[in-house]
Amino acid sequence: MPELRKDPIIGRWVIISTERGKRPHDFVVEPEVTKGGFCPFDPGNEHTTPPEVMAYREPGTAANGPGWLLRVVNNKFPALAREGEEDRRGEGMFDKMNGIGAHEVIIESPDHQATLATIPLDGFYRVLTAYRDRIVTLSQDPRIRYVLIFKNQGRAAGASLEHSHSQLIALPVVPELVMEELNGGKFYFNYKERCVFCDMIRQELQQRMRVVLENEEFVAISPFAPRSPFEIWILPKTHFSSYIDLPEDSYPRLAELFSETLKRLIKALGTVPYNFMLHTSPLREPELNYYHWHFEIVPKLTLIAGFEWGSGFYINPTPPEDAAQYLREVQL
Amino acid sequence: MPELRKDPIIGRWVIISTERGKRPHDFVVEPEVTKGGFCPFDPGNEHTTPPEVMAYREPGTAANGPGWLLRVVNNKFPALAREGEEDRRGEGMFDKMNGIGAHEVIIESPDHQATLATIPLDGFYRVLTAYRDRIVTLSQDPRIRYVLIFKNQGRAAGASLEHSHSQLIALPVVPELVMEELNGGKFYFNYKERCVFCDMIRQELQQRMRVVLENEEFVAISPFAPRSPFEIWILPKTHFSSYIDLPEDSYPRLAELFSETLKRLIKALGTVPYNFMLHTSPLREPELNYYHWHFEIVPKLTLIAGFEWGSGFYINPTPPEDAAQYLREVQL
Repeated sequence: MPELRKDPIIGRWVIISTERGKRPHDFVVEPEVTKGGFCPFDPGNEHTTPPEVMAYREPGTAANGPGWLLRVVNNKFPALAREGEEDRRGEGMFDKMNGIGAHEVIIESPDHQATLATIPLDGFYRVLTAYRDRIVTLSQDPRIRYVLIFKNQGRAAGASLEHSHSQLIALPVVPELVMEELNGGKFYFNYKERCVFCDMIRQELQQRMRVVLENEEFVAISPFAPRSPFEIWILPKTHFSSYIDLPEDSYPRLAELFSETLKRLIKALGTVPYNFMLHTSPLREPELNYYHWHFEIVPKLTLIAGFEWGSGFYINPTPPEDAAQYLREVQL
Repeated sequence: MPELRKDPIIGRWVIISTERGKRPHDFVVEPEVTKGGFCPFDPGNEHTTPPEVMAYREPGTAANGPGWLLRVVNNKFPALAREGEEDRRGEGMFDKMNGIGAHEVIIESPDHQATLATIPLDGFYRVLTAYRDRIVTLSQDPRIRYVLIFKNQGRAAGASLEHSHSQLIALPVVPELVMEELNGGKFYFNYKERCVFCDMIRQELQQRMRVVLENEEFVAISPFAPRSPFEIWILPKTHFSSYIDLPEDSYPRLAELFSETLKRLIKALGTVPYNFMLHTSPLREPELNYYHWHFEIVPKLTLIAGFEWGSGFYINPTPPEDAAQYLREVQL
């Protein structure tokens, strides 16, 4: 009998096929074909990207030249304009505003071949602190309300360049799904006087059916009602609503756990395309007792039929208990 | 300057690229390759599908044999089980229930080559009344709370068989996006004492910037804040919350408008893959003054990067005003 499961945060129901649950080798993962050729993200080609807005560099190297360890540049084809005023206005009953904000690319490593699953831990750590540093800087712009950080890994997940990079979209509004999580978290808190994410972590660590990996500070779980096979969330065990409030010495622990999670995913499924997103509280909010920042990693294993994103109703052929077990048992 | 626009019903913001808006020939639509070979939906092969649950037939022809004009069968690989009890239960803080419901396939025509864009009007009419008839029948099952009707046209939109068909998923819960529309409609009604959809139709018919097509009873519009280029909604001009309350003699008018809309879409874009969904009120609800049934047609023109469905934030490269104009000006 298939199961209907409800996401405890936003209340979305999903169908989980419990009987003929798909195992890792039931999914056909096409290997990524390396295209080679000119790469604007390679060291030496810095002049072919828009100027850098931030970089971690070897001492003594100049901006927009080689010597960087991580580099953030504006997107060459930005979805939003950096300059201008919000200018919120109506058109009859409809609401609109200028598309101001930022659209940046985080070039994670000078190494063209590196991926987040293979990059050394200090490189992964730099990526995670770069996310923080950009959010901190952008939060000084009062027009910006939210910084959405995400990664498209692999062509099928939307990456148009193979050199490993993340993206950042800074917005004058809060994305719908984060808003739903905020509202869901608030609703739960009003009833229980507890954070729904903290409750979830507590139960997962007790049941240990959906835990993929943990260390002292972080846990990777396959959530109870995932939209997608092998979906994984990474959360801090301690309550924080904003990613940027994470203490400096916690980032290496996060890098360790995140890195091993990706290694396990790729070992289990091959070079699977995936997306991840950072969900954190809106900028300049005080610490919220009802929200808990986390990463959501979503492998691209099933064709998301339009009906699924058009109805908000997902069918997932792999129970998260099975997914977590496969990922735990993988030999690295 | 790109624009941020807010959907008036559910409040979702989207980015509309107003400057370098993509025109129809900017999209690469791969022609569908006809695979040929055995088709379980062709007349004569009725024994290779699960038994029919409904059919429109030539007089004197027997169930599960040829002579049908439209045929509804259970999905061979159903996502939900037809028999069983809901059995709602908790697992600690989590909620689940048995995946009971129905998963049916509506084989729209005996003609293997026909599509909804080419089918004669009486054939389209049969498809639309079949949707109604199945909802009416399934609403007699008290376990079923919602009937989700959708179509995946083309392989890239999720169709696994090329013979034109729609699908139906009957659920013991309401899909998330319909729930959001119900909540959004209720919120607007509480404030304005008017239906948000009726207000939208009134403004669209006045502005005429986003109207694709209309007749006495129905209108096809490119909505103000579409997620996808060339997204089209079809709505009745008169307020109805449930599709099944549409008077019998309105279905031919709906078939005319829906058929011409698809013809224009395909003429403008080529054999574009698309999805459509019927959004209607939950089963056995009385007439709701705050909800308005409609179809949403979403062409599959952009790769939906995981970040988009993972954040609920969409970037649309074609302003709906442009899309509506292209579709109006197409020579059929």
